[in-house]
Amino acid sequence: MSTRVFKGIFAALTTPFVDGEISASHFKENIKKYNTTDLAGYVILGSTGEAVHLTDEESFMFVKIAKETSSSGKIIIAGTARESTRLTIEFTNHLASLDIDAALIRTPSYFKSQLTSEALKNHYFSIADNVKIPILVYNIPQNTGVSIDASLVCELARHPNIVGIKDSSGNLAFLSEVIPNLPPGFSFLLGAGSLIFPGLCLGASGAILAMADAVPDQCTNIYSLFCQNKMEQAKHLQMDLVLLNKLLTQIYGVPALKYAMDCLGFYGGDPRSPLLPLNDEGREKVRIILEKLSHLVKTRKNI
Amino acid sequence: MSTRVFKGIFAALTTPFVDGEISASHFKENIKKYNTTDLAGYVILGSTGEAVHLTDEESFMFVKIAKETSSSGKIIIAGTARESTRLTIEFTNHLASLDIDAALIRTPSYFKSQLTSEALKNHYFSIADNVKIPILVYNIPQNTGVSIDASLVCELARHPNIVGIKDSSGNLAFLSEVIPNLPPGFSFLLGAGSLIFPGLCLGASGAILAMADAVPDQCTNIYSLFCQNKMEQAKHLQMDLVLLNKLLTQIYGVPALKYAMDCLGFYGGDPRSPLLPLNDEGREKVRIILEKLSHLVKTRKNI
Amino acid sequence: MSTRVFKGIFAALTTPFVDGEISASHFKENIKKYNTTDLAGYVILGSTGEAVHLTDEESFMFVKIAKETSSSGKIIIAGTARESTRLTIEFTNHLASLDIDAALIRTPSYFKSQLTSEALKNHYFSIADNVKIPILVYNIPQNTGVSIDASLVCELARHPNIVGIKDSSGNLAFLSEVIPNLPPGFSFLLGAGSLIFPGLCLGASGAILAMADAVPDQCTNIYSLFCQNKMEQAKHLQMDLVLLNKLLTQIYGVPALKYAMDCLGFYGGDPRSPLLPLNDEGREKVRIILEKLSHLVKTRKNI
Amino acid sequence: MSTRVFKGIFAALTTPFVDGEISASHFKENIKKYNTTDLAGYVILGSTGEAVHLTDEESFMFVKIAKETSSSGKIIIAGTARESTRLTIEFTNHLASLDIDAALIRTPSYFKSQLTSEALKNHYFSIADNVKIPILVYNIPQNTGVSIDASLVCELARHPNIVGIKDSSGNLAFLSEVIPNLPPGFSFLLGAGSLIFPGLCLGASGAILAMADAVPDQCTNIYSLFCQNKMEQAKHLQMDLVLLNKLLTQIYGVPALKYAMDCLGFYGGDPRSPLLPLNDEGREKVRIILEKLSHLVKTRKNI
Repeated sequence: MSTRVFKGIFAALTTPFVDGEISASHFKENIKKYNTTDLAGYVILGSTGEAVHLTDEESFMFVKIAKETSSSGKIIIAGTARESTRLTIEFTNHLASLDIDAALIRTPSYFKSQLTSEALKNHYFSIADNVKIPILVYNIPQNTGVSIDASLVCELARHPNIVGIKDSSGNLAFLSEVIPNLPPGFSFLLGAGSLIFPGLCLGASGAILAMADAVPDQCTNIYSLFCQNKMEQAKHLQMDLVLLNKLLTQIYGVPALKYAMDCLGFYGGDPRSPLLPLNDEGREKVRIILEKLSHLVKTRKNI
Repeated sequence: MSTRVFKGIFAALTTPFVDGEISASHFKENIKKYNTTDLAGYVILGSTGEAVHLTDEESFMFVKIAKETSSSGKIIIAGTARESTRLTIEFTNHLASLDIDAALIRTPSYFKSQLTSEALKNHYFSIADNVKIPILVYNIPQNTGVSIDASLVCELARHPNIVGIKDSSGNLAFLSEVIPNLPPGFSFLLGAGSLIFPGLCLGASGAILAMADAVPDQCTNIYSLFCQNKMEQAKHLQMDLVLLNKLLTQIYGVPALKYAMDCLGFYGGDPRSPLLPLNDEGREKVRIILEKLSHLVKTRKNI
Repeated sequence: MSTRVFKGIFAALTTPFVDGEISASHFKENIKKYNTTDLAGYVILGSTGEAVHLTDEESFMFVKIAKETSSSGKIIIAGTARESTRLTIEFTNHLASLDIDAALIRTPSYFKSQLTSEALKNHYFSIADNVKIPILVYNIPQNTGVSIDASLVCELARHPNIVGIKDSSGNLAFLSEVIPNLPPGFSFLLGAGSLIFPGLCLGASGAILAMADAVPDQCTNIYSLFCQNKMEQAKHLQMDLVLLNKLLTQIYGVPALKYAMDCLGFYGGDPRSPLLPLNDEGREKVRIILEKLSHLVKTRKNI
Repeated sequence: MSTRVFKGIFAALTTPFVDGEISASHFKENIKKYNTTDLAGYVILGSTGEAVHLTDEESFMFVKIAKETSSSGKIIIAGTARESTRLTIEFTNHLASLDIDAALIRTPSYFKSQLTSEALKNHYFSIADNVKIPILVYNIPQNTGVSIDASLVCELARHPNIVGIKDSSGNLAFLSEVIPNLPPGFSFLLGAGSLIFPGLCLGASGAILAMADAVPDQCTNIYSLFCQNKMEQAKHLQMDLVLLNKLLTQIYGVPALKYAMDCLGFYGGDPRSPLLPLNDEGREKVRIILEKLSHLVKTRKNI
C-alpha cells in the first residue's frame, strides 16, 4: 500500500437531504462539479457532513458514492470516529473496504475530564495498530471540548499508520510548535478557513475546509498563489474570505453553508434536526457577503 | 398507559465488561443486589453506563436484562439519546418495546453553537410527539457543553409526554428558578450527588446517581431522613458523601466508580477504552475515602 | 480585640454617585433606612459597591461614613483587596484605623494562570499575618476568573486571623465539602442570592447580598424563617426572589440593582463608566419583576 | 503633535524589584542594554511590567526613568488603564506630562458580563476624547476575561486619537478580519510571541513582546528578515522561539521571564507577591530551552 500525499485544499462535503432523507443524486451532482476544480480531494462524513446525524448504513453509502463519482485524481478521506476505541476500529475497517485513502478520526469527547493525553495516546495507537488504512488525527475542540496537546501530536506522528492531522482549533501557535517536530511526509492540514494563508506560511500542507463546498476556486487559489510565491495576492484573497468563513462556520454553521451552496449553484438543502434551516436574517447576511465577495474577486482579477 | 411517579433515589447503573466484552451475568448479579435496597429504580444506558461505548444491540440487551431482573417495584429508565432527532425517536421506540417506564434523553451536543433554545425546543417536542413512552430531559453541560435554559424547561414541561428532568449541572439556582413553574406531577431529579439534600430542601423529587451504584443505602438514607423531616441527620449524611462523590464523578469518573463497586461487593470491572482503568493513585484515594466513610457511617448510627 | 460573629444577612452596599461624583448624603440616607431592618451589617467597597471604580480617598471616606452612620448593632466589613499582597496589607491597615469589624479580601485575578493554590495560600497568610483586623476570604470566580480550592479554604481557616469566607461561586458542593472541616467560629457567608435557603440548610452562617440593598426585609426573612425552622415558608420566599436576583446580578448587574433601589425608595442612581445606566428594556424587566414580587409577598403573608 | 508610527518590535519591559522594593538602577541598566538593539521602543507598565502590582507613584517614576534613559530613537508607550473610565483618563494625562508617545489601554475587566461592545465603545471614545496623547487599545482576554469584537475595533480605529491596537488573544482570524478595514496609519501590534511571523504575513505592523526582554535580537531578527522578504529564514526563527515563548508566557509567565533575563545578562529578579519566584522545575526547563535556542541560533547563522 503506497500512501498518497495529503496536501492542497480538500472540501469537507455536506450531506444532502431532501425532506430529511438522504439524496444520492444531489451528492453525485455536487461531486461532479467539484471534480472540475483544483480541489485535492474530499472529506466525507466530517463535521460538515453531519456525520453525527447519519446511520452507519447511510454513512457507508455516501462514502461509496463519493469513491465512485470522484475523478481519479481526487483523494477520498472519510470521517470514521466513534466514541469508543473498538467501535472506531470496526467502523474504520468497514469503510476501508471501499478503498479510500485515509480515515479522519476526531478525538472522543464524552468523558471530557478523563480524556487525558495518556487516554488519547492509547486510543489513537490502538486504532492505528488495528485499521487497514492510514489515519489522520482530528482536533476540533470547539465541537468536542477536548484538545490534543502539541507534544502528543508529535508522539502520535511517529506511528507509521498515523499520517497527518487536521487541526480546526484556530490556534496557529499549535502549528508552530508541532511542525518542526513532525517526521517527513506527515501532513498538517488546517481546518480553519480564515487561517489558510498564514498557516501555509508556517508550513502547513494544506487545508480541509467547509467553505470549499461553496467557493472551491477561491480556496484553491489561495493555495496556488502561495505555491507560486505570490504572497500579497494570496493574503488579499485570504482576507476576502474571512467574513464568509465566519458566517458559514462559527456564527451560523452548516445551515448557512448549505444555503450558500444553494445560492452558488450547488445543492445545499436543509440540515437534519436538531439543526434548523437558516433563518431569514442569516440568509440575508449570507447573500450580502456573497455579493461583496463576488465584487472583491472581480477587483482582484483586474489587478 | 399510566405513568409512574419518578421520585426517590435511582442508581445510574454501570455497564460491566470482562476483557472489553459485555457481561450479562455480572449485570444481573448487581441488579439482584440493588433489588434488596430502597432504590426507586435504575437508569440503564446513562452517562455512567458508558452508553456512548455500546452498540445498539448491546444497548438493547442490557435494557432487556434490567427489565427482566429488576424486582417488580423498581422503575426502569433507559438513556436513548442520539445526536439527531430522528435517530433518537427511532431508538427510543425500539427500546419502548421492552415496556420500560421512561426514556432519559440528554441534549444533543455536537453543533454546540447552533443548539439554541429554539433548536432544542423543536428537538424535544418532536421526540415527545413521536415516542411511545414518557421522556425525561437530561441536562449535563459538563459532558455535552450545552445547557438548557430555565425558561425552556418550563415550556417543555407543559408537553404531556415530557414528565421530568434530570439536571446534572450542579447549579441549584436553576432548580430554584424552574421548580415553582413546573406542572404538578413533573419530576425534577438531581444528577449531582453532592447536592441531594439541599436539592430536596428546594423541592426536588429525587436523584439519579452514579454514586448509588457503590453506596446505595447511604444515598437512599438521605432521601428517607429528609422525608421524615430529620434535617440534621440528612445534612450530615450528605456531607459524609461529598468527597466520595467528587472522586467518583468529577475527578476520576466511571473508572473510579467501577473500582469502588469492586471494593464494596458489586462487580465494577474496567471501562471500555478510551477510558482507562483507574490508576494506582486513584485506587489508593478511593480506598482511603471508603474507609473514612465506613467509619463515619458507624459514628452516625451511634448517635 | 474580640471578634464579632459573622452570621445573618449582610447588605453589600452600592456606592451612590450623582453625575459621576460620589454622594455622601445619599449614602447616609440609605444606611439610615437599612438601620431599621434586621440586616446584620454592611459590606462597603464590595463588588456591588463598585470598589474598582473608586480612588483610595473615596474608598476611605465611604467606610468612614458607614461606620459613623450605622446603628451600633450593625457589623461593618470593608472590601480591601488590591492585586498585590503588599498593597492589600497597606490598604487594609489604612481602613483598619476606622475601627471596622473585618476586611473582605477577594482573590487576586490578573495573572490567572500563575495564581495557584500555593500562590493564593502565601498571599492570604501574608495578609492575615500583617493586618490589624480579622479577614474574610472572598471567592468570586465569575468576576475574577480565579477559584479557591476547597482544601485551601480549610487550610486558610486555621489561621487565627482568617475568620470567614464569602463564596459567590454559586456552587453549593463547595460549601458541602468545606463546612465539615471548618473550625468552630469560622463563618461561611453565601454570596449567591438564589441559594440563601439551601445554603443555610447545609450549615452556612449567613449571606452577603447585593439584592439586600433593594429588598432587605425579604432577605432577612428567609434567614429568620430558617432559624425558626419554618422550612416551607423559607423555601417559598427563596424561590420568590430567584428571578429578581438573577436580573440584579447575572443579567444586568449593578446598574439594575441601582435602578431597583430607585424604584423601592432607596437612592440608586447611575453607576460609573464603563458600566452603563440600565437601558429601557432592563428597566421594564425590573419593574415587572418587582411588581410580581410585591404580589407574591402579599400572598405569602395571607397564608 | 505629530504621532510617531508604531511598527517593528517593542519590548514590554519587566519591573525590577530587589527584596520587593523597586530598583531604578536595574531598570536603567536593562534599558541601556536594550538601547543597543533594534527594538522600536519600550512598553512600560504593561502586563509584563506587573503594572497591577505598582502604586501610582512607582508607576510614574518608572515611566520617567524609561523616558530619560532610552535613546532618542526609541518609542515610549505606557500602560495606563484603570478599571473606571475617569481614573483611566486622569492617570493617562498624569503620565502624558512625561512626553511619552502613546498610552496602551487594556479593556476593563471586573464587571465582565456588563462589558458589552456598547460599554467598551463608550469607554474608549471617552478616553480618546479626553487624553492628551494617542492611545492604543489593548485586547488580552486570557488575563481580563473580556474580548474586543472585530467590528468594534474597526469603529474605534476611526477616532483620530486611537492610533493602534495590541492584540494578545493569539487569534489570527481576528487580525485577518480587522486589518482590511483599518484606516491608513493605524497600527496592529501583535502581543503573541509565537505568532510574530504569520501575523506579519497577514499585515500586522509589528509586535509588543514580553519575550523581547530576554531575547531582543531574535525577536527583531524575525521582523527584519520578514521586511527583507526572507520568508523561510523568518519562519524558522519564529519556530525556534515558540517553546521559549510558551514557557515565558502561558506556562510560567513573568517569574520565568525574569529568570530567563537573569540567565541572559539582564536583571530579572523576583516578581512581587502574589506571584511567586520561579520554582526549581521551572528554572530547569528555562535553562534547557535557552540552551537549545542558543544552539539553534548558531545553526541558523551557519546556513
